[in-house]
Amino acid sequence: MTDNRKWVLARRPAAEPSVADFRLEVTPLPQQLAPGEVLVRTKFLSLDPYMRWRMNDAKSYARPVALGEVMVGTTVGEVLRSESADYAPGDLVVGAGGWQEYAVLPVAGLRKLDAAAAPLPTALGSLGMPGFTAYAGLMKIGQPKAGETVVVAAATGSVGAMVGQLARLQGCRTVAIAGGAEKCAYALETLKFDAALDHRDPALAEKLAAACPQGIDVYFENVGGKVWDAVIPLLNDFARIPVCGLISQYNLGNAADGATPMTALMRDVLVKRLLLRGFIVTDFVEYRDEFLRYATPLVADGTLQVREDIVDGMENTPEAFIGLLAGRNFGKLIVRFA
Amino acid sequence: MTDNRKWVLARRPAAEPSVADFRLEVTPLPQQLAPGEVLVRTKFLSLDPYMRWRMNDAKSYARPVALGEVMVGTTVGEVLRSESADYAPGDLVVGAGGWQEYAVLPVAGLRKLDAAAAPLPTALGSLGMPGFTAYAGLMKIGQPKAGETVVVAAATGSVGAMVGQLARLQGCRTVAIAGGAEKCAYALETLKFDAALDHRDPALAEKLAAACPQGIDVYFENVGGKVWDAVIPLLNDFARIPVCGLISQYNLGNAADGATPMTALMRDVLVKRLLLRGFIVTDFVEYRDEFLRYATPLVADGTLQVREDIVDGMENTPEAFIGLLAGRNFGKLIVRFA
Repeated sequence: MTDNRKWVLARRPAAEPSVADFRLEVTPLPQQLAPGEVLVRTKFLSLDPYMRWRMNDAKSYARPVALGEVMVGTTVGEVLRSESADYAPGDLVVGAGGWQEYAVLPVAGLRKLDAAAAPLPTALGSLGMPGFTAYAGLMKIGQPKAGETVVVAAATGSVGAMVGQLARLQGCRTVAIAGGAEKCAYALETLKFDAALDHRDPALAEKLAAACPQGIDVYFENVGGKVWDAVIPLLNDFARIPVCGLISQYNLGNAADGATPMTALMRDVLVKRLLLRGFIVTDFVEYRDEFLRYATPLVADGTLQVREDIVDGMENTPEAFIGLLAGRNFGKLIVRFA
Repeated sequence: MTDNRKWVLARRPAAEPSVADFRLEVTPLPQQLAPGEVLVRTKFLSLDPYMRWRMNDAKSYARPVALGEVMVGTTVGEVLRSESADYAPGDLVVGAGGWQEYAVLPVAGLRKLDAAAAPLPTALGSLGMPGFTAYAGLMKIGQPKAGETVVVAAATGSVGAMVGQLARLQGCRTVAIAGGAEKCAYALETLKFDAALDHRDPALAEKLAAACPQGIDVYFENVGGKVWDAVIPLLNDFARIPVCGLISQYNLGNAADGATPMTALMRDVLVKRLLLRGFIVTDFVEYRDEFLRYATPLVADGTLQVREDIVDGMENTPEAFIGLLAGRNFGKLIVRFA
């Protein structure tokens, strides 16, 4: 008979959390498991930035942790008891155990680990959620091509480290942004980034420009704030920006507190998984025949209408154009020449 | 022997253009055509918002019009003389004739028109660049699904009108934003939008929320400014925002003049055709096996490394987490339990 020690959320921080926002509680271990549940003893707990948002009482992509509730988190643990035919005591699993020594978990959310295939902590890092986040964001959204320049913020973090290494394996020039000389050295020497910059450097914008002589094709955003500001002017046409985190913003508290329109937009891009994509029609020239096949009969039979605002006389062209910018036209503005 | 009347750019406007920014010039018609060129007499000239940007001396997706140079524009015209076997006098063509009565054009940039298939002005509207812009942005980026809500700014303009009608044909709820009662009535009655709102209405944000009880799934952006501000809070998860124009911003002049960080970002999204897309890793769960197959051997052989920052003792969890948010960890932060 053992007690379970757990960290619960004691109060919601307004900005930076403090230790007093958490409370260590001791409760008896549950004796009863429902069918399909296992009792898991935590061996490793992953700590991740997203947890900061879960401490706010704000709508996000996951519900907030309630006051008095155990803090959420992914864990590697060992099964002690099982009410599932698929799991036996001694099995190693990764799952949502939270900040506690023991967790009762439904097996539906678990994945078994083979300790011989890779060290257990990698299930929380390079082969876990951070590694897969890097892979999905870089490969499926960023779509890096050989020779392109990929910039990674928080580049020695678990996501950023994987992004940089995966991009290098795709043949890209990789530029790390990290906090301090030690992390920058690690990014260059161990992670093999082509360049590494300290985000605390007052000359970050200039140094980033110098490190990206061909501009930036992919910026993997997991920081926000001033790094994003430095990146914007260097982005190439058709650059891709997977937005997977905004750690510099998390301590701003709820969305409305201290947020500029820009930080609010970026938060929405992240939380709502928005897609923004600029375009001009010539980017899609391969679809023009498809469009004309579809639309010509619909224009001919009146299903699709565009009102025409026809101005007679080429001498009236500038005035008509100025009216267009002021919204004075009504329909497609066309000048009819004599 | 005829003269050619043309509107050239006389000076670059700082904000709203005036008639004095253009100059009507009369020049003799060129007598010589090079091989592959035709002489075209303009019948219709399309006027479009993008022309405003071409008047600025700023990098955009097309080079600026030079001072003294004829203003650019798409025209429908009739071939008068031809040095191409593919074009004969009397052929009707659409091309980049510009703001002038006659143009010498290389045939590579021309498309022949059949006056019997559709009225000639439609080649500049519903079946021209605006119609195709609507189709490409809505169908290829917006990807509307039946039952979704599509909001269109400048909804009675040639692009917006096509967007709304195409979205209705896809089974979407369509909401128009237009300037004034007459345009709103036209949007409802002729274009068959489900709702229409006047962007000048001080209660635009509240009325837009009421018109979109299920939120917004696609916002076709061609205006910018306050309409965008009203749209942002209503966007649903995974909303798509094709950005094809920012007419409310064009008179701001060069990028740096009067631009906020937000307007500067949106201008870059448009001009550079950027893709922004928020994500969380669970959105890509179908790729997890692909990731593990790819990454596991690369982690095992050391090609992919993620440094682990392991903190011993569950009692240190909150302090470790607070350090994570402050950037004090170095590598994937993991708590090792006893």
